[in-house]
Amino acid sequence: MADNRYWRLDDHPHGNDFAAAFSLQHEPVPAPGPGQVLIRNHWLSMDAGTRMWITPRTDGYQPPLPLGSKMMGLCLGEVAASRDRAFAEGDLARCFGQWADYALVDPATSALTKVDAGVGDVRQHLGALGLNALTAWAGLVEVAKVQPGETVLVSAAAGATGSLACQIARNLGCTVIGIAGGPEKCRYLIEELGLAQAIDYRNADVAAALAALPGGINAYFDNVGGPMLDAVLPNMAHYGRIALCGLVSTYDSDLPVPGPARFDQLLMRRLTITGFFLPDFLDRAGGYLPQLRAWLDAGKLAMRFEETHGLEHALDAYAGMLTGRNIGKAIVRVHG
Amino acid sequence: MADNRYWRLDDHPHGNDFAAAFSLQHEPVPAPGPGQVLIRNHWLSMDAGTRMWITPRTDGYQPPLPLGSKMMGLCLGEVAASRDRAFAEGDLARCFGQWADYALVDPATSALTKVDAGVGDVRQHLGALGLNALTAWAGLVEVAKVQPGETVLVSAAAGATGSLACQIARNLGCTVIGIAGGPEKCRYLIEELGLAQAIDYRNADVAAALAALPGGINAYFDNVGGPMLDAVLPNMAHYGRIALCGLVSTYDSDLPVPGPARFDQLLMRRLTITGFFLPDFLDRAGGYLPQLRAWLDAGKLAMRFEETHGLEHALDAYAGMLTGRNIGKAIVRVHG
Repeated sequence: MADNRYWRLDDHPHGNDFAAAFSLQHEPVPAPGPGQVLIRNHWLSMDAGTRMWITPRTDGYQPPLPLGSKMMGLCLGEVAASRDRAFAEGDLARCFGQWADYALVDPATSALTKVDAGVGDVRQHLGALGLNALTAWAGLVEVAKVQPGETVLVSAAAGATGSLACQIARNLGCTVIGIAGGPEKCRYLIEELGLAQAIDYRNADVAAALAALPGGINAYFDNVGGPMLDAVLPNMAHYGRIALCGLVSTYDSDLPVPGPARFDQLLMRRLTITGFFLPDFLDRAGGYLPQLRAWLDAGKLAMRFEETHGLEHALDAYAGMLTGRNIGKAIVRVHG
Repeated sequence: MADNRYWRLDDHPHGNDFAAAFSLQHEPVPAPGPGQVLIRNHWLSMDAGTRMWITPRTDGYQPPLPLGSKMMGLCLGEVAASRDRAFAEGDLARCFGQWADYALVDPATSALTKVDAGVGDVRQHLGALGLNALTAWAGLVEVAKVQPGETVLVSAAAGATGSLACQIARNLGCTVIGIAGGPEKCRYLIEELGLAQAIDYRNADVAAALAALPGGINAYFDNVGGPMLDAVLPNMAHYGRIALCGLVSTYDSDLPVPGPARFDQLLMRRLTITGFFLPDFLDRAGGYLPQLRAWLDAGKLAMRFEETHGLEHALDAYAGMLTGRNIGKAIVRVHG
C-alpha cells in the first residue's frame, strides 16, 4: 500500500515555533468511504487565517482543530479516487483538506470545487482565481463598497490577499496605497502592481505618511489589525469604511491584545468597521470570477507565487508566510 | 437696557468640576444684526455631546469652543426679535444657541427651527420630538437597521437618548434590553418603558447577564463606549450591528482611553460598528417626526423631564446629567 505522509497537530504552537507543535506522520493512503473523494495534493496554500485554528481559543470564527488531528488548509490537486459522482478521477479540484500527500474529503463540508485546468498556470486557482481573490473582492466591493476615484489603503499589501486587493482596487479606478514591510515589498507594490504609494512600516512613520494624504482614506482593507489601526483611524476620511479581513498581528499572541486606542475616531469621523469572512459570501462569490478571469487573461491581475518544494518543508513555508517573509502567495508543492 | 446673563467658558474643565471653568456674566441684551434672530430662552437642553466641545481636543466632530466664549447648547424659546423674515416675534423655536437669558443666532448655522406650539407639552420639542429622538431613530433605523423580532441592547438606557431608543425599538417590535446604573433606573425601564430586561451595571455582571441571552444581541445602540463594549462584543449575535452614538464614558478623560479589548470579536462574529452623528441625518430627519408625533399622541413615547429652575443652576444640572444622576431628560428652565 502506498504511503501517505501528513502533518499532525500535537500541541498548540507558541509564536512561530511550529516544529515543537507538529510532527510528520505516515499512514497507508486512505480509501474514500461512501460519498468521499480522495485528492492527490499538488499544492498546499499557506494562509494566515489557519493560524487561529491551531490555538485553543474557542471564540474564533472556526472551532479549534483538536490536538492529534491532521493539519487542515486549502489544497489544490487532482482527484485520485471518488465515491461522489460529481467528481471523476483526474479532475483538478480545490478544497479544504489535510496537509498530506493525499486529502480525504467530504465534498459538502470541504468546499470541494472543480476548477478549470485550462487556465495558463493552474496555481492561479490558489492565486488570482483563488479564495484570496474572492476575499479581496468581497471586502472591497461588498463590504467597503469602494467607488472609482476613492483612496483605498491596504495593509499587508504585498501578501496574497493584500496584493490582490491592491490590484482589484486599482482596476476599479481607485487610488491605492499599500502598507508593507521593507523596501523590496514596497518596490514590488509600485513597480509591479502600479500603486500610487507604498509605505514601508518598518522604516517610515505610517501615521505621518497617511496624514499627508489629501482628503484622507475612504476605504481601508485591513489584514492585520493591532497597532496599525491606530495610525489609520485618525487619517480616515469622514464616512470612511474599514473592511476588517484579518487580525494577523494578533493570531499568535498568548496575551490579551489591546484594542485600538483611537477607537473614538469611529464616532468623530463617522466611520464604519465591518468584520467579514469569505464563507459568508461563497454562495455568490462564483459571480466574481468572470471579471477576475478577464483581468487575469488581460494581464491586469497577477500573483507572485513563492513555492516551497516538498511536504516535509511545509512548516518553514508556513512560518515564512506568517512572518511576512515572502511577497505574494506562499504555496507548498507536494506533487504535480 | 435689559440684562442678559450668560455662562462663559473660562477654562477647560477637569472631570465634572464646572464651577472652576465657567462664570456667569452679564451684558446688555444684544440686538439682532441683519439676518439674525434673538431667542428668549425658555429651556436649555443638557446634552452629553456638548462635553466634548469644552475640551481642548481638535479631533472631535466639532471644533472646540474657544475659551472666553459663551457656552453653547440646544435651546427652546420664543423669538424676541428677528431680522429674518422666516421667523416672527412670538414664534416657538429650537436652535443651537447660547446658555443665556437670550440666544442670538444666525438661522443658517444654528439649526434654528420653528416648532409646533400646539403639542401638549412644548418641552417635548426637547424630548420625544427633539434631537435625542431623531438621534435614536437615525441610529436604530438608518444605522443599525433593526428589524421586528430582533434583540436590541441600549446603554445609558434611562438617559434622554437611551430612553427614547428603548421605546422606539420596542415600538418597532424588538425585544429591548437596557443597561442603566442603579435599581431606580432599572425599575423605570421595566415598569414605565416596558422593557424585556434591565441590567444594573453598578450591581450586576453585565457580561454574564448578556451571555445568558438566547441568540445574542442583534443590535446595540451604544451611548457610552469604554469598558461596557467589552462586555457586549462577545455577546453580539453573528452579523450584529452596533450604532455608536456617543462615548460619554470618555469625554471628560484627560488620559488616553484604552480601545475595546475584545475588538477581535468584530471579525469573529462579523459585526459592523458605525459611528454616527445626527447632523448628517438632519436633511431627512423631518421625515421621522410624523411617526414620533403619532406615538407621542398615542402615549407610546414618553419623556421624563428633570427640570432645574434658573439659569444660575445650569452647571449643577449639567454635572448631574453627565454623572447619570437623573432619569430621562435634564433641562434648565430659564424663562417661560
